[in-house]
Amino acid sequence: MRLAELSRRSGVPTATIKYYLREGLLPPGRRVTATQAEYDDAHLKRLRLVRALIQVGRVPIASAREVLTALEDESLDHNSRLGTAVWALPHGPEPAEDESAQESQEAARRTVDALLARLDWEFAQEYGDESPAYRMLVTAVGTMARLGYPCAVDDLAPYAHAAQQLAVADLDLIERFDSPDEQLEAAVALTVLYEPVLLGLRRIAQTEESNHRYGQRSTGE
Amino acid sequence: MRLAELSRRSGVPTATIKYYLREGLLPPGRRVTATQAEYDDAHLKRLRLVRALIQVGRVPIASAREVLTALEDESLDHNSRLGTAVWALPHGPEPAEDESAQESQEAARRTVDALLARLDWEFAQEYGDESPAYRMLVTAVGTMARLGYPCAVDDLAPYAHAAQQLAVADLDLIERFDSPDEQLEAAVALTVLYEPVLLGLRRIAQTEESNHRYGQRSTGE
Repeated sequence: MRLAELSRRSGVPTATIKYYLREGLLPPGRRVTATQAEYDDAHLKRLRLVRALIQVGRVPIASAREVLTALEDESLDHNSRLGTAVWALPHGPEPAEDESAQESQEAARRTVDALLARLDWEFAQEYGDESPAYRMLVTAVGTMARLGYPCAVDDLAPYAHAAQQLAVADLDLIERFDSPDEQLEAAVALTVLYEPVLLGLRRIAQTEESNHRYGQRSTGE
Repeated sequence: MRLAELSRRSGVPTATIKYYLREGLLPPGRRVTATQAEYDDAHLKRLRLVRALIQVGRVPIASAREVLTALEDESLDHNSRLGTAVWALPHGPEPAEDESAQESQEAARRTVDALLARLDWEFAQEYGDESPAYRMLVTAVGTMARLGYPCAVDDLAPYAHAAQQLAVADLDLIERFDSPDEQLEAAVALTVLYEPVLLGLRRIAQTEESNHRYGQRSTGE
């Protein structure tokens, strides 16, 4: 298909598609004349993932390129492609750099390690600091500790149990896709796309729980 | 205490505190000389909340000001203060505005309404579109539908059940604070502060679940 059809079928404006092509987020089409190129279903699918990352996930262009490069890296097995792709996604605020922050980061690391040990999450314990999600968690817990908000192992445990159930739901969705390539793409896209779903549902559920506990008093929404 | 001590005790640089004062995120201190003001524990606590919102929650200055104004609005009851404050928090990407987006938003609204009805979440059904969390959810579901990712009521239900458990954990944490004012502040702060905790835990749990299902194959991290 030509650029105009790719735009029509994807719902992405041609100017945006041209921008993605220039930025290397979309592979070039097959050139048919000096000014025209031909695109295929692979472009359409790739465009869908790029939109998910950039529009919903607010993933910066450079990170999106890194994610996509990992997904296509033929030198890696399925496993490593996915790991590298998800690790390239943004992982929230970086830790503060002053001295008191470093202390609370150390304490947060001990809390997170104790939590992972209690949950028997082996992979996370093995990879520790190499994993961006682990560092994201340590940063968040360290900030809470510094600000004096509750974040002990017992406080975090219910969130970890909920996360376990979410992971089951995530993998059930991913398994619906047939080919390994589609599963890879879906794993990255659904990791990002379900984040606002989850945060929105949590805020709504807070109101419901508050009304359940306090009658007409509203907390959360 | 003087500005220098407020800075030392809060860990926030004096230049940043002055910026928050100028932006109205922190009430002015009691002026003691032409160049010096005196701050108290209320400033320290407020500073803690401002840091949570801006540093972790990436809340824009204008929204943070709106949140804080609501928390202090004496004309509102406890309830309405909290509702207004949480509603002023950012709620993720705005819906796209083209025509095909509007169609998928309408379909997404029907999906979300069916989900809320199935869960018997009464408050959310009553407030619907007035609630920013509801609109956030509709936008996220609409985007997924447009991109062709799974987001039917049955797909969303496990996420909603996890959200219910999260809300119980959230309210348990908030109830640890004694006074109504502290609970208000904690409700806003913990809504924001636990978001990266939850997203980090979910990504870690994905890897664990993947290893549980597929042995050495890694999904998620």
